[in-house]
This record gives sequence, C-alpha cells and structure tokens, in this order.
Amino acid sequence: MKINEKHYRAVWMKNRVVYAIDQTLLPFQFKIYESKDYRDSAKLISSMLIRGAGTIGAVAGFAMAQAAHEAPAKNYGKFLATAREEIEKTRPTAYDLWNSTELVYKAALKSKEQAVRKAQEIADQYVLSAKKIGREGERLIEENDGILTHCNAGWLALVDYGSALAPVYMAKRNGKEPFVYVDETRPRNQGASLTAYELKHENVNHSVIVDSAAAYYMAKGEISMVIVGADRIVANGDIANKIGTLDKAVAANYYNIPFYVAAPLSTFDIDSDTGDDIPIEERHKNEVIYCKGQGTTDEVENVRIVSPGSNVLNPAFDITPASLISGIITERGIIKANENDIAILFE
Amino acid sequence: MKINEKHYRAVWMKNRVVYAIDQTLLPFQFKIYESKDYRDSAKLISSMLIRGAGTIGAVAGFAMAQAAHEAPAKNYGKFLATAREEIEKTRPTAYDLWNSTELVYKAALKSKEQAVRKAQEIADQYVLSAKKIGREGERLIEENDGILTHCNAGWLALVDYGSALAPVYMAKRNGKEPFVYVDETRPRNQGASLTAYELKHENVNHSVIVDSAAAYYMAKGEISMVIVGADRIVANGDIANKIGTLDKAVAANYYNIPFYVAAPLSTFDIDSDTGDDIPIEERHKNEVIYCKGQGTTDEVENVRIVSPGSNVLNPAFDITPASLISGIITERGIIKANENDIAILFE
Repeated sequence: MKINEKHYRAVWMKNRVVYAIDQTLLPFQFKIYESKDYRDSAKLISSMLIRGAGTIGAVAGFAMAQAAHEAPAKNYGKFLATAREEIEKTRPTAYDLWNSTELVYKAALKSKEQAVRKAQEIADQYVLSAKKIGREGERLIEENDGILTHCNAGWLALVDYGSALAPVYMAKRNGKEPFVYVDETRPRNQGASLTAYELKHENVNHSVIVDSAAAYYMAKGEISMVIVGADRIVANGDIANKIGTLDKAVAANYYNIPFYVAAPLSTFDIDSDTGDDIPIEERHKNEVIYCKGQGTTDEVENVRIVSPGSNVLNPAFDITPASLISGIITERGIIKANENDIAILFE
Repeated sequence: MKINEKHYRAVWMKNRVVYAIDQTLLPFQFKIYESKDYRDSAKLISSMLIRGAGTIGAVAGFAMAQAAHEAPAKNYGKFLATAREEIEKTRPTAYDLWNSTELVYKAALKSKEQAVRKAQEIADQYVLSAKKIGREGERLIEENDGILTHCNAGWLALVDYGSALAPVYMAKRNGKEPFVYVDETRPRNQGASLTAYELKHENVNHSVIVDSAAAYYMAKGEISMVIVGADRIVANGDIANKIGTLDKAVAANYYNIPFYVAAPLSTFDIDSDTGDDIPIEERHKNEVIYCKGQGTTDEVENVRIVSPGSNVLNPAFDITPASLISGIITERGIIKANENDIAILFE
C-alpha cells in the first residue's frame, strides 16, 4: 500500500534486518522498526508490534532466517531448533506462524542462504496470494454493496493488500464503490485504528461502528455480506479468528447474509480435525481494563475503563463453525467450508 | 444501594432540589450533583449525567415538578406546556420519560403541590417495581448460573435495585451465587464502568468482557441466561434497548439460551404497535471516536481511538423483535413478549 506516495509492505527483510511498520503506533504515527536478530523479531510477534496471520507468518520466516545466520557453525542444528521453539511460542493461535517456521527451518538445515531465500519466498507468496484472493473475492461484490468486516485483515495483516480487504480494494479499483462497515474490534481496536486507516488511504467509503452495532445494520438490510480473515482454518472448515467473528457469523446467519472467510493456503491447518483442536489465546487483562488512544497531548496513552476491583476475561479469538461460513476465498478459488473441498485444495 | 455504608438512590428530590449521582464520573469519582431548576434537571438527562430508563423517568418527573414551582401564576399553563416539551426532547427513545412528564404535567395542572407529590410517587414506584421485578426474576435463576447482561440496568438505571440486575441481587441475597458476564457496552462503557461498579458493591461474582465475546461464552455453555433492561417496550413485544442488545438476542437464540427483558410497566408504550415505530437516537460521533477513562494522573479524560479522517456511525439503541425474547420480567409477573400478554397487563 502507498503511504505518502511510497509503496510499503507491512514487513520486509533486507541484509538480514527485518523492517516492520509499527502497528501499535498506527494510525497516529507511521514508524518503521528495525529488528537485527531473531529474538527481537520474535518479540515483534509476541508484543504485537506486528499482527495479522500473514504478517506474523512472514516475520516468523524472517526470524528463522536470521537465526540461521546467527547460529554458530559448531552448534548449528541445536541453535536452530531452540530458535524455532522460541519463535513458535510467541502466539498460539495463528497457524501461519508454524507453517513458516517449519518451511524456513527445513531450508536452514540445508544452508543459511537457503533459509533467507525461503523466507523471502514466503513473504512474496503472501503478496501473490493476496492479489489472487482479491481477484477471486472481487467477483462476489456488486456495485455499492455494504460490506462488514471485523478486525484488520488488510495490507497490515498479510504483508500487502490483505485477505478480507483485498476483494474490497479490487472492487474499488474496478469502480464498484463498496461501502465498508468497520467493526472497531475491541479490545485492541484494530478495526478503528488499522482497517479505517487502510480504507482511508485507498479512498474506500467506510464508517467505523462499535462491534455491537453490526446486527443493527444487518437488520436494516444495509449489509450485503461479511468478509473476515482467519488465523487458522482446520480440516472440517471451522475457523479461528479475532474474538467477535463468531458473533458476526451468528448474526449473518440469522439475517441470511453471506459470511465469507478470506485466507491464503498457509492459514490451513489440515492436520487438525475441528475447531475444538485450536488453542485459544487468553491475553492480558490490561487489554480490556485499559483503552489505548491518542491523548490531548498527541501522545499515545492508556485510560482505565473498567471499574477498579472488577475481574475481566480476555479471550483473543473465537471459533466459527463451518456451518456458519458461506465460503472461503483462497488464492485457488472460493471453496465451501467443508472437509471435501478443503482436502481437494491440498491434493 | 449502599455506598460507604450509606444507602443512596440514584436520584432523589428534596425541597425542590434534584440530587443525582453523577454517572459520568463513576466508577472513578462518587459525586452528587444538585439541580435547582427544571432546565438544569432536563440537562441531567440530555448530557447523560444520569441515564437508564427508570432514572430518566424519575428525573423527568422531578423536572416537571420543579417547573410547576417555577411557573409564574399568570402564565402557569403555558409555562408548564413549554417546560414539558423541553423535558421531552432530551432523549427520544426512553419511554419512561414521556410517561413521567405526562403524569406530573396532569398533576401540575391541578396544583404545584400535587405535581411534587406525583413526582415523588413515581420515584417511589420505581423502587417498589424494582423490588418486585427482583422477586419475580429471581425464580428464574439457579445456583451458580452464568448470567449475561448488557449495558447497565441496575440501581443507577432504575432509582434503586434495577431491572435486569434486581433478580441477580435477589439471587445473591438468597445464596445462589450467580456469576455475571458483564458486556463492557461500547461506546459509553456503561457495563465496564457502572454495572461492574454495582456488582462489586453487592459482592456478586462477575467478569467484564468485550461485547464481542458474549457469543464465545455462549458457545462454551457458560451462559445460562441473558437478562437485559429496556428503554421502550411496544404493544407487540418488540423492545428498544442499548445498541448491542439485538446482537445478544440473536446469539442467545442460536444457542438456545433464554433471553429475558426486565422492565417496569412504565417502560411499556402500548400505543406503538411494533418496534418500527420507535425512534432510534443517533448520538454524537465523538462517543465512538474517543474513549473516556481514567488517565495516569487520575483525571477522567478522552483518548482518540478512531483513525483520523474516518467517518463513524453511532446508533444508541437497537430493536430486538419479540420473537427473540423468552419473557418480560415485570412487577406483575413474567409475561410472554406478545400482544395478548401485554394487553392483559394493562387491562
């Protein structure tokens, strides 16, 4: 995506330095973080300086490649295995992370040069997949459609273009003028901060709504379809995505509104049978207790919103069952969320 | 409810001064606002210094009574009529407001003393109704039930005890140890700030969750029932309540979880046929753009969360259709949300 007339990916690696747009500072500051070793790159994931399935996948690959370069010759294999473990434990739900570490780890066992090549290839593949997802998904969108999306599954989440937002950007470029209802996506507000930021830069008409207002606009007939991303898709078509995705799927089902999931093949975990097998990350309570935003002095700060002394619960993801999903938009076409269609994809 | 060992109603009137707990400062500051004339009291409603159907109703009645005292003898009727109009235009959705202004206006036409008596009677009636709603609703709750509530329909919203929370408080006193899932209730966070504050003071086990997480806990089987309040209930059983209520009702329906609405008779607008007849208040965009909370200096402040340049939409209420409501808990018993049962209530 272009920021100030210059095209940026969400993350990239050059001369073994990982560059990442700091997503914790957006939309208020545009700043590029430089990570020089694999531990620091792993921290980009765990601290959520970057997030989004594909961007996590790309950074995990880059971090593995950095580890290959940092590994001492006489202890190469053990160092790599330890690094892989460290990188894999940064987030538990996003499958792209495991997919990338495995691919780059295997390449690294051959040589460090191959590790770098594989990591770059993975990042490039995300961009290619995103473009294809955009073209596939664009066919679903008609003139002036109202599209609901949750969280951020755009440029920032998939290296470039996005998964859920790629069809929207393509529709916009083809003159269809979609209107996007952007769930603010509590507790980290990725919709209000990141998706809104992207849509404005791409000149897509949109409005931010509180997560709770989606059903209201569905009931009014203003939403033609829902498109969300995914952090993991398992063999039977169940998906894990940002907390609140299930809620939208249930409401879309009630109002007979198509509910699409957009994701590249790297998000599929076909070794897991159902959504029950996906670990759900419970994140720190402070994400709910405090709300982050730009204060009067332009500094990004936290204000307390939960009454002191009250407990909070903070599941980061939920599982949407395949039965509520109208289709999965992949780089190889739009498939049904069922075992058969998914198996064919991986034949 | 007791705060620091002293029992307070959310609002009261003494010697023609209206006293109101400032709900915009809770849970961080407990402060009582004194309003000496009807215009100021009307402003308590429009500024949302107080909110909640019954508390709005009580303040509207007090304001009408103040107007009767302020009205000059030679222009008494016209002054009253103007005051009534001003009070009624403070909020468009809550029916209790209209109910109270009508009753106190009619009493005021007889004498200003009767106006005061009627206004006090209305406030007392809310407290009585709340207690009865508590006893009726308590029968639905079993030991260790998980109860989901949205927004604040407690003590602060109904002068005392509450509508949706009254059964919870009664169950707690009877040793049933309910556990309440408290929706934070964006954009004004009345759940995180007010409901959590009340439940802590009443020693009810609870956790605050983001609004989007409710379906997740329903899917896990942890929620036995949903209880919410209402701002208006019309003849066919449709209800208006805080934005997001519809969302919970749809999810509860999908997971076969009972969905109850608790409200006194004063919330029923039987002259309106269906939910389509209820005006939905669209509130200021800044409620979504900024998030209010306690900053590091203990001051209550606003931080910007929406990306600059993006539009927002802020409907304050939604309509939940009668078909999604398991029952309405009133001071005259639990009824079905249908035309027949509601008509019988008003025979």
